[in-house]
Amino acid sequence: MPCVDKSFLLLTGVVVFYFIYLLFGGLVFSIIERPVEDQLRRDMEALIQDFLNQSCVNQTSLEHFLVKVMKANAYGVSVLGNSSPTSNWGLASSMFFANTLVTTIGYGHSTPLSDGGKAFSIFYALLGVPFTMLVLAICVQRLMYPLVLTPVSLLQRSGLDPRPATVVHFLLLLVLAVLFFFMIPAAIFSTLEESWSFLDGIYFCFISLCTIGLGDFIAGSQENQKERNLYQISVMIYLFVGLMTMCLLLRVFHRMADLHGLTTFLQLPHSEG
Amino acid sequence: MPCVDKSFLLLTGVVVFYFIYLLFGGLVFSIIERPVEDQLRRDMEALIQDFLNQSCVNQTSLEHFLVKVMKANAYGVSVLGNSSPTSNWGLASSMFFANTLVTTIGYGHSTPLSDGGKAFSIFYALLGVPFTMLVLAICVQRLMYPLVLTPVSLLQRSGLDPRPATVVHFLLLLVLAVLFFFMIPAAIFSTLEESWSFLDGIYFCFISLCTIGLGDFIAGSQENQKERNLYQISVMIYLFVGLMTMCLLLRVFHRMADLHGLTTFLQLPHSEG
Ligand SMILES: [K+]
Ligand SMILES: [K+]
Repeated sequence: MPCVDKSFLLLTGVVVFYFIYLLFGGLVFSIIERPVEDQLRRDMEALIQDFLNQSCVNQTSLEHFLVKVMKANAYGVSVLGNSSPTSNWGLASSMFFANTLVTTIGYGHSTPLSDGGKAFSIFYALLGVPFTMLVLAICVQRLMYPLVLTPVSLLQRSGLDPRPATVVHFLLLLVLAVLFFFMIPAAIFSTLEESWSFLDGIYFCFISLCTIGLGDFIAGSQENQKERNLYQISVMIYLFVGLMTMCLLLRVFHRMADLHGLTTFLQLPHSEG
Repeated sequence: MPCVDKSFLLLTGVVVFYFIYLLFGGLVFSIIERPVEDQLRRDMEALIQDFLNQSCVNQTSLEHFLVKVMKANAYGVSVLGNSSPTSNWGLASSMFFANTLVTTIGYGHSTPLSDGGKAFSIFYALLGVPFTMLVLAICVQRLMYPLVLTPVSLLQRSGLDPRPATVVHFLLLLVLAVLFFFMIPAAIFSTLEESWSFLDGIYFCFISLCTIGLGDFIAGSQENQKERNLYQISVMIYLFVGLMTMCLLLRVFHRMADLHGLTTFLQLPHSEG
């Protein structure tokens, strides 16, 4: 009983501290980057006005103009007037950015403009990436009994040999993961995001949960979405639980590979527990 | 002796097959995406000409124009005429893209435009990401004797206790890694890339080797660089060896944490070997 308590305490403590770390990151990024972004936004507005006031637009002046526009766009500052100027560095958006750093997804939809922001990104990820790996490992460890060891022993008691039991269990887990972390979320995202097809939804889920994070599709990044902050926080929770599931699948696959002699064949270290 | 041979054969086979897999990915992405990109490039040229031929530019027509320009830019197609129209989907660039997929870095400087490209990205990463993890694990396993077990036992024979020996060894490895995979490459990149400061170089190395890959700084992505293909291939090799070093450091850290009782304290599985 005291062992269970300690384990539960550790898990809760780590998750709470993780949330505080994200909040801290969000705050610092917001403080560092928001003024720089505001300045860039004002510069862009002036640039647009200057451009519109020009008597004649030629190739050279247009290119000059576009270079600046695209540079601002790369930092997540759009020059389009009809979009309400929601900051990329408000608290929720900054936490979202901090989250994409520590999970190594790194969409890059908004990136630090200032040297201070870059330096803080390095420092923040240096601690945050291993910390996230630790949090995920601890969560997966807690899920091993209910989701892996118990079901496999149930399968074995129902008459399956150990090896086929692990295969059946892995496939079952895989089907559930594909359903609950790819199919259903993709359906939801393609409903919530105006221009997304179902394939776009699957593509977003897959590219995110593999931590590739290309950043061409990001749920909750449209400026005019309703309840955008709530949406971004939901996406963050989806990403965290999804990554946890990916880690669990990898761990279960490793155990299965051990049991089937694959790890020994490749002369690699075995999984434990 | 036959064991060493088998191990060497396995390593060589896996690395050669990995290169073939990257080449295959590059070829397919190039075949799928190049025509789509060419079409987009032609559309953009027409758009620019239409825009320049307009008698008067107002806010609405400018915004309409900019929406299209920024969308093309997000796919890596620049509308600027002075940049020579080097394709993002030539063989070397497509291999570079395939490489950023399978290593999960995913800069997103160019992303698939077509549904076929997106579907192939999913399929390619589905096999490629675990494959890359396997290749890295096999390489790291081969490096354990010369870079970890031998130096630690040397340190122990020179009079250090096992625990301090692992700490000294880890710190030594860390300093070497920082020097050879962050400091020196950052200096080189900030020389080769026109607009990069040394901090930008460090930021690129760090964001890449953590596999975050924000994509705001990418070595070898300027269109007018000399020997761009050779440069991109060198960056790919740097990234691969760098990631291997990161995996090695993580493994060594895990071993050290085991020895110091940290893994047991956190109730996590131990490292092996
Ligand atoms: K990325
Ligand atoms: K990434």
